[in-house]
Amino acid sequence: MKISEIDWSVKEQEIAQSAFNKAYQREITALLESVRERSSSIVELGDIWNLNDLLNSKRHELDGKYEYEYSVLIFVFAKLLKEGWLNLNDLEGLTSDKRAKISALSRM
Amino acid sequence: MKISEIDWSVKEQEIAQSAFNKAYQREITALLESVRERSSSIVELGDIWNLNDLLNSKRHELDGKYEYEYSVLIFVFAKLLKEGWLNLNDLEGLTSDKRAKISALSRM
Repeated sequence: MKISEIDWSVKEQEIAQSAFNKAYQREITALLESVRERSSSIVELGDIWNLNDLLNSKRHELDGKYEYEYSVLIFVFAKLLKEGWLNLNDLEGLTSDKRAKISALSRM
Repeated sequence: MKISEIDWSVKEQEIAQSAFNKAYQREITALLESVRERSSSIVELGDIWNLNDLLNSKRHELDGKYEYEYSVLIFVFAKLLKEGWLNLNDLEGLTSDKRAKISALSRM
């Protein structure tokens, strides 16, 4: 079965949605802290444009990354796991096969 | 004579360059203050994207506005005067004809 065709039970959908939200919240919280920190050390125009570049890039990245579609969710979770916004405990309750796939993809 | 063909004496070029630099420094200083102030009140993601939008727009605006070319300098100064980054005292030493043109254009 292709990864895009994997079934998600209602219970798994709840777990997935919750894990997805947690990862998003963690990444947003980290971004808010990082922007506040960088902003407090702005002294010249170059610092402003560096911040601007970072925000443009982060916005683009977030738009692409947080796609809640079951057909791609295994890949989304693998990426979030790799980047540290999710851990395997957040995925407790998904089938062991799904968790194994996510874990394997996250190491690629 | 078209505005783009107006002559600038060496002395006037010095005054113009100095006025141009002053306006630029004033606007940059105000931008730095404004970004620091906005950054300190960032509490949610929307605040970050609002700041991002503002910086993109400001960058574009500054790129277009601070063009040091004698053929367009009367217009550049008129705009800076209108926006308050320059005042007529900064242009002391330019011919009265130039100052009158800049002043008139700034009120359009």
